[in-house]
Amino acid sequence: MTASDAIKNRTSYRGKYENKKVPREDLIKIAEAGLAAPSGCNKPTTSLIVVGDADLLRKLRDVIKPPAAETAPAIICVLTQKIIAYRDRCFNVQDYSAAIQNMLLAAVELGYQSCWYEGHITDADMIGRKMAKILGVPEDYELVCFLPIGTASQSSAYADKKPFEKRVWFNGFGNQICS
Amino acid sequence: MTASDAIKNRTSYRGKYENKKVPREDLIKIAEAGLAAPSGCNKPTTSLIVVGDADLLRKLRDVIKPPAAETAPAIICVLTQKIIAYRDRCFNVQDYSAAIQNMLLAAVELGYQSCWYEGHITDADMIGRKMAKILGVPEDYELVCFLPIGTASQSSAYADKKPFEKRVWFNGFGNQICS
Repeated sequence: MTASDAIKNRTSYRGKYENKKVPREDLIKIAEAGLAAPSGCNKPTTSLIVVGDADLLRKLRDVIKPPAAETAPAIICVLTQKIIAYRDRCFNVQDYSAAIQNMLLAAVELGYQSCWYEGHITDADMIGRKMAKILGVPEDYELVCFLPIGTASQSSAYADKKPFEKRVWFNGFGNQICS
Repeated sequence: MTASDAIKNRTSYRGKYENKKVPREDLIKIAEAGLAAPSGCNKPTTSLIVVGDADLLRKLRDVIKPPAAETAPAIICVLTQKIIAYRDRCFNVQDYSAAIQNMLLAAVELGYQSCWYEGHITDADMIGRKMAKILGVPEDYELVCFLPIGTASQSSAYADKKPFEKRVWFNGFGNQICS
């Protein structure tokens, strides 16, 4: 699949997944795509935990309230560390976001669906911390996002976005491409 | 080009560019890739200004100190707005980072090189604000990044990254894939 098709075909899939294991080599490819993303001053702020074990998935699901991606046969948990890039600057949010985007595209290319679950687990109820505890994550890492990975069993919907001409300008703010 | 090849081939290119215009349709494709990225609660926090006009590029270059991407025939400036997704949560950094990553991949697919220049222009010397002023950007937008777009005239180097086995674990923190 071309990069532009993967970019266009990606959706935030919130439907059910088929009961079909994701081969470990596919999960590795997706994780590799994540690590291939750039990071500010090349600081390795992003790490990943790939979960395919059924018991562990069950334990994680038990703390994800309200339930989300319950039928996914695998999930990738995204960890971040606030490693300083220079002076007081830290680009860890940018770093993990670029890594997540790469993984979403790699998943689409391999025929899977996924969704970026971040706000859901980093809210005041601290679901991410509970997930991190289950996975034995040390305290200097924060679990900020999980990506379900699996074959969709329902159709996925494209988000209705604010149109191009209201978000992209040429040679100055507000200049339309055709003007 | 496949998505996985674009992901692998992307580098942070800091070399010189050929003196060769980037066709507007290619710049549009790159911008479209940016807008196709997900955003938290589908809030359109990211906007773009594509600059290919030679005079305007010169003016922008004059404020980018120390100089960077001076020979690029086009740049894409990334604007962000802190639009609340829900309660007090705002995901604008995640949103523009995913959009940038998509644009970097789209550029690679089209045969161009680029680089994510963010810290360079959002530091205490506020270069981003000077660029925004030149481009007529309203005050409720922040110019946080620019991407040079062009054909590389030098070879690009791959960053030496912290290895996979120190950043990706399976079914629990620290578990190697092969263990």
